Amino acid sequence: MNVIKVGIVGLGAQMQENLLPTLLQMPDIRIVAVCDSDLARAAQIHHFISDVAITDDFDDMLDTAALDCVVMACPPQAHRDLSLKAMARGVHVFVEKPPCFNLVELQHLIEASRQANVVTGVGMNFKFAKPMRQLRDITRTEQFGKVVHIQLNHYASKPTAPLWGLDSTLRSFLLAQAIHTIDLGVTFGGGKLQSIESRVQRHDDSLLVSLELEFSTGATVSLLSGTLFPYFEFDMKIVSSKSMMVELNNLWNITMHEPEHGTSATGTAKRWRGAWQPGPLDSGYERSGYFGELERFFDAVRNRSSYDASFESLLPTFEVIEQICQADSQRELAPARTLRTDGFAKSKAPAGVSFNAL
Amino acid sequence: MNVIKVGIVGLGAQMQENLLPTLLQMPDIRIVAVCDSDLARAAQIHHFISDVAITDDFDDMLDTAALDCVVMACPPQAHRDLSLKAMARGVHVFVEKPPCFNLVELQHLIEASRQANVVTGVGMNFKFAKPMRQLRDITRTEQFGKVVHIQLNHYASKPTAPLWGLDSTLRSFLLAQAIHTIDLGVTFGGGKLQSIESRVQRHDDSLLVSLELEFSTGATVSLLSGTLFPYFEFDMKIVSSKSMMVELNNLWNITMHEPEHGTSATGTAKRWRGAWQPGPLDSGYERSGYFGELERFFDAVRNRSSYDASFESLLPTFEVIEQICQADSQRELAPARTLRTDGFAKSKAPAGVSFNAL
Amino acid sequence: MNVIKVGIVGLGAQMQENLLPTLLQMPDIRIVAVCDSDLARAAQIHHFISDVAITDDFDDMLDTAALDCVVMACPPQAHRDLSLKAMARGVHVFVEKPPCFNLVELQHLIEASRQANVVTGVGMNFKFAKPMRQLRDITRTEQFGKVVHIQLNHYASKPTAPLWGLDSTLRSFLLAQAIHTIDLGVTFGGGKLQSIESRVQRHDDSLLVSLELEFSTGATVSLLSGTLFPYFEFDMKIVSSKSMMVELNNLWNITMHEPEHGTSATGTAKRWRGAWQPGPLDSGYERSGYFGELERFFDAVRNRSSYDASFESLLPTFEVIEQICQADSQRELAPARTLRTDGFAKSKAPAGVSFNAL
Amino acid sequence: MNVIKVGIVGLGAQMQENLLPTLLQMPDIRIVAVCDSDLARAAQIHHFISDVAITDDFDDMLDTAALDCVVMACPPQAHRDLSLKAMARGVHVFVEKPPCFNLVELQHLIEASRQANVVTGVGMNFKFAKPMRQLRDITRTEQFGKVVHIQLNHYASKPTAPLWGLDSTLRSFLLAQAIHTIDLGVTFGGGKLQSIESRVQRHDDSLLVSLELEFSTGATVSLLSGTLFPYFEFDMKIVSSKSMMVELNNLWNITMHEPEHGTSATGTAKRWRGAWQPGPLDSGYERSGYFGELERFFDAVRNRSSYDASFESLLPTFEVIEQICQADSQRELAPARTLRTDGFAKSKAPAGVSFNAL
Repeated sequence: MNVIKVGIVGLGAQMQENLLPTLLQMPDIRIVAVCDSDLARAAQIHHFISDVAITDDFDDMLDTAALDCVVMACPPQAHRDLSLKAMARGVHVFVEKPPCFNLVELQHLIEASRQANVVTGVGMNFKFAKPMRQLRDITRTEQFGKVVHIQLNHYASKPTAPLWGLDSTLRSFLLAQAIHTIDLGVTFGGGKLQSIESRVQRHDDSLLVSLELEFSTGATVSLLSGTLFPYFEFDMKIVSSKSMMVELNNLWNITMHEPEHGTSATGTAKRWRGAWQPGPLDSGYERSGYFGELERFFDAVRNRSSYDASFESLLPTFEVIEQICQADSQRELAPARTLRTDGFAKSKAPAGVSFNAL
Repeated sequence: MNVIKVGIVGLGAQMQENLLPTLLQMPDIRIVAVCDSDLARAAQIHHFISDVAITDDFDDMLDTAALDCVVMACPPQAHRDLSLKAMARGVHVFVEKPPCFNLVELQHLIEASRQANVVTGVGMNFKFAKPMRQLRDITRTEQFGKVVHIQLNHYASKPTAPLWGLDSTLRSFLLAQAIHTIDLGVTFGGGKLQSIESRVQRHDDSLLVSLELEFSTGATVSLLSGTLFPYFEFDMKIVSSKSMMVELNNLWNITMHEPEHGTSATGTAKRWRGAWQPGPLDSGYERSGYFGELERFFDAVRNRSSYDASFESLLPTFEVIEQICQADSQRELAPARTLRTDGFAKSKAPAGVSFNAL
Repeated sequence: MNVIKVGIVGLGAQMQENLLPTLLQMPDIRIVAVCDSDLARAAQIHHFISDVAITDDFDDMLDTAALDCVVMACPPQAHRDLSLKAMARGVHVFVEKPPCFNLVELQHLIEASRQANVVTGVGMNFKFAKPMRQLRDITRTEQFGKVVHIQLNHYASKPTAPLWGLDSTLRSFLLAQAIHTIDLGVTFGGGKLQSIESRVQRHDDSLLVSLELEFSTGATVSLLSGTLFPYFEFDMKIVSSKSMMVELNNLWNITMHEPEHGTSATGTAKRWRGAWQPGPLDSGYERSGYFGELERFFDAVRNRSSYDASFESLLPTFEVIEQICQADSQRELAPARTLRTDGFAKSKAPAGVSFNAL
Repeated sequence: MNVIKVGIVGLGAQMQENLLPTLLQMPDIRIVAVCDSDLARAAQIHHFISDVAITDDFDDMLDTAALDCVVMACPPQAHRDLSLKAMARGVHVFVEKPPCFNLVELQHLIEASRQANVVTGVGMNFKFAKPMRQLRDITRTEQFGKVVHIQLNHYASKPTAPLWGLDSTLRSFLLAQAIHTIDLGVTFGGGKLQSIESRVQRHDDSLLVSLELEFSTGATVSLLSGTLFPYFEFDMKIVSSKSMMVELNNLWNITMHEPEHGTSATGTAKRWRGAWQPGPLDSGYERSGYFGELERFFDAVRNRSSYDASFESLLPTFEVIEQICQADSQRELAPARTLRTDGFAKSKAPAGVSFNAL
């Protein structure tokens, strides 16, 4: 398979702003069909490419276009249901996050993908962002040592109401936003997830979610996220067993704190750090991860190899999401204040959850 | 009492670098006696002031100099023992942190101070740092709303061995370093401390200490500290119920994220934030808090009023320190790995611990 | 003309990295032919689009493809010669910078474009970068006042040898790099250019170029550029008559210094400034200006209106380039040191040079 | 002379905020007398030290106190006149900047100091600021190479009216503010000053002063300063012959850009730079230079050695100030606009002006 034939599902904002432009500039990828429940929106593809079939019927698209894979950006129920259909036909599947609503559904999707023997992928662009790869490279060097702790701060201002017909704003937020940072914690934590603790604070319609994870590697993760912030931003810090700390601010700037640092003219001296930033003309979809997520997915499709952000890779992340929701609902029910010794809701991770790091 | 007569105890590095220069430039303060177990070191005061009595005998100093108060920078056992002596004579006491080794000793000191009816103070300079006061002012405004969460990161590279004859590096670190940030958590958290959770990770001789606190105000604190870092630095973030987040980096720079921000020429627009930094010629001991801590202490001495960093004010901080040590020692004893459901050691705060915020 | 038919000339690095991906994601633009002297390279277009004619003969492309315009990324001599051919056929022309080697050639191109009545454009992407537009908007507000001074710092590490068959590294640098910042100076300076002063310093193969411009608006520009830097970066500051200073660092971050600034919680106070930065997921070609430069060019083509970065718009910039080269060569000839009163080479701007700001 | 006996003149804001606290914490310095035209203000010294004679008569102080030196913070006319008196008595003299109003007066002061054979000093604290010394150390290493260019930006908001009875706001600004940055240009430029060019722009009561200097070392300086800014800030960049650029922002942060930089975990890679910042508890008067300027002065007094910021050291700086004022007044007189080829007023530096760098 040299050229990959792609069917697009859902030509909304996320597709038009990030996935479609990335697909259009990717070599040996052909968009051959577009499906959208709004046919007029599907027709917008003709602003970019002429010879593309459009439809508002997914089954029709599967029937008529000889697709290698579908790329979807829809609500989770569509991701879930249409993935099942596509996989049943042996079509590889890439969906925007989230792929579905909960762990049980995810397990169902994974089972179906195994039976169909197709490559699956979820749009976890943070994981594929260029500076995140730099961090992966750094944390794998002998000089950096072992990862001891990862601090993730994920600031958001929405959603402040349930999405996609759900009745829980918390679950909506976790699936729409925190899924990225939980996945990063899982990725950098490595090994098996051994402990999950969480706390949810509410103010009006806004949430603050604190999370602590422990891994079999000995690494720990603390994550602060929520919708109680003025705008979306993101930063993370990784502390190593060799007293190094690398931080990434806003997917732009990397700072490396290390015991011995300096310049050629100063020699090493205290309080010098290494700072990296992208060039002024950095462009395109590499830094934000949209290019990398699709490039690697198509590589996996071509090579029938595993993909870092497969449905399966998200199991521990969905475990965490389930735990947060469950702990929060138990706490909601409890007669608060009197037994607040359990500030953090904890749980032992179920024995079966394991995964390989990126 | 217009001019306050001060006896200095311990003319070591901390005294000479921070407290002494601050005292020398403070109006209406007279250093009238210096005590140091090393008399030659005590004599170094004569580089700065001529007419000062020196001694290596604290009792002698109390006997002969008509002191209003003593200012000490010694090991904790000296702070504890000499404070008791000074208070017994009705002399006000200001000691560098830590004032003593543990909660029981602190309670003893508090009891003694009540009986002696003297003003006590501990050198919690972070609390009095100028930008910290700006943060206090900000967080008290109606516009800021209620404090919801405080994230404190306190990076240190030492101690990596026990201090002061203690047998615990952990306790040494908590008393020497984390005491500041725990106290800040307590100060900004407000109300009563209701839940303490902690985790200690070790790598070689280095520590990583994670802490979660909950307060009766609803505010929560997360603190990451330890000695696994290349050098000392410090940053904090405070999230409010009105979707504002103010951050302080390294006691230098303040950034305010708020939903509506901009400039007179742009109007409010997304991703604008307010940034403050000190002027290039900012000098002296105000920013770092050494001036403020002493100025306020002497004000309290003059007015016989309460002092924000009295022995008593440190009760919840010492509670937290005891909890961290206790949880860590229990965990050390436990057959690890099998019951890691208790990643975080938690405890209900004892009913009696309350305090007023700064 | 709804869909614009584009012929691409030169499928090298700049085209493939920036212009082509931008064109591919631009609505209602069709690439219908590709010309490259290396036919195999031209064929690379088929990785992205199937139905495109390729050729290594520009005349052939003009003859056979019914082009609305050509977009070129070639050496300047090709830009110059092929533009003349295209314009003679009434085809609109967009070329990467530089469009040609010198002022005389530029005047010739302008003359030809007037006769052909076509829209011309040069890839001055800095001018169209998103933060640069924010700066334009800011500097046009009444609140900002009049532009008094613009400081431009343009750091580069190359070229260190002549490009394109030229014999001057200085001219090569000015045409390849400084052209952007000189154009920005001209754009923000406004009005007529009234004085040009320059100084060139050399170290080994590297250059340092200092430039001072004065405009009829009263605004002045100082520009520091050259190849004596470790890597490419860029920053600028604009000072206004109302004591405001806005700075743009590296095309990423904007900082606004103004006499009255603060936050809703602090009120205005000294040393507060407004800071803006792009979101973590900022992607694509808008920020770096590649999208804007082409989007506006095609708008001009559609509306037969003038384009901000037309050949003509570059007249004052080429004036400045000529002056710098001329002053430098005169100085080289002069018996240096004895008459160094002329540190800066100055010249009165020729009377005829005027232009409208962006 | 072990202990140096100091007479203070002028107990105003600058003395009380910066010089006095520095003197009080400096070893083996004794303040033995204080003179202020306002005797009540002189008496404020007794808040800090008891046994100090006060007077409102400078001659009286010289007569009665056996002074080694005087430290003054007064208007320039007092610096000038009282320095002459003190020097005539063989008393060493340290004055806040400026020491006098113009070059002729400075030459007179220098002549008097030579005849009296005393040490003279001016409070050029920027020159002695700790990060400035780091820069000096860096720029002197072989790795850094030769200084090629220094860019100085000195932002101020005042004075907007003449000071000290002068009739020129420009001269007032240069003497009160720009004196520091001109002196830094001279210090880092090295060698002999060979060319001075300047431009002054006015808006209402505010000034913008641009300056270009050339030195016999081949180094050049560009300085942007003025009162058209919202608040006082300062930054500088030094470019070297080895493609390194070190920048100092606001006397706080140092950034070193160099061709090869990275971290132990990354190896060298593009766009890494070294960044340095002071620790959170940096306190006192070292960073801002008040300690260094006095410490070095007293060292010179003790050793009868030369002092880096002597009256004589300021000769080239006053040359520059005279040139700026003269060029500006000529330009004011000229029928503007018609002959604006002379945007920058230039002058060959007078043959006799030479100096040794710091």
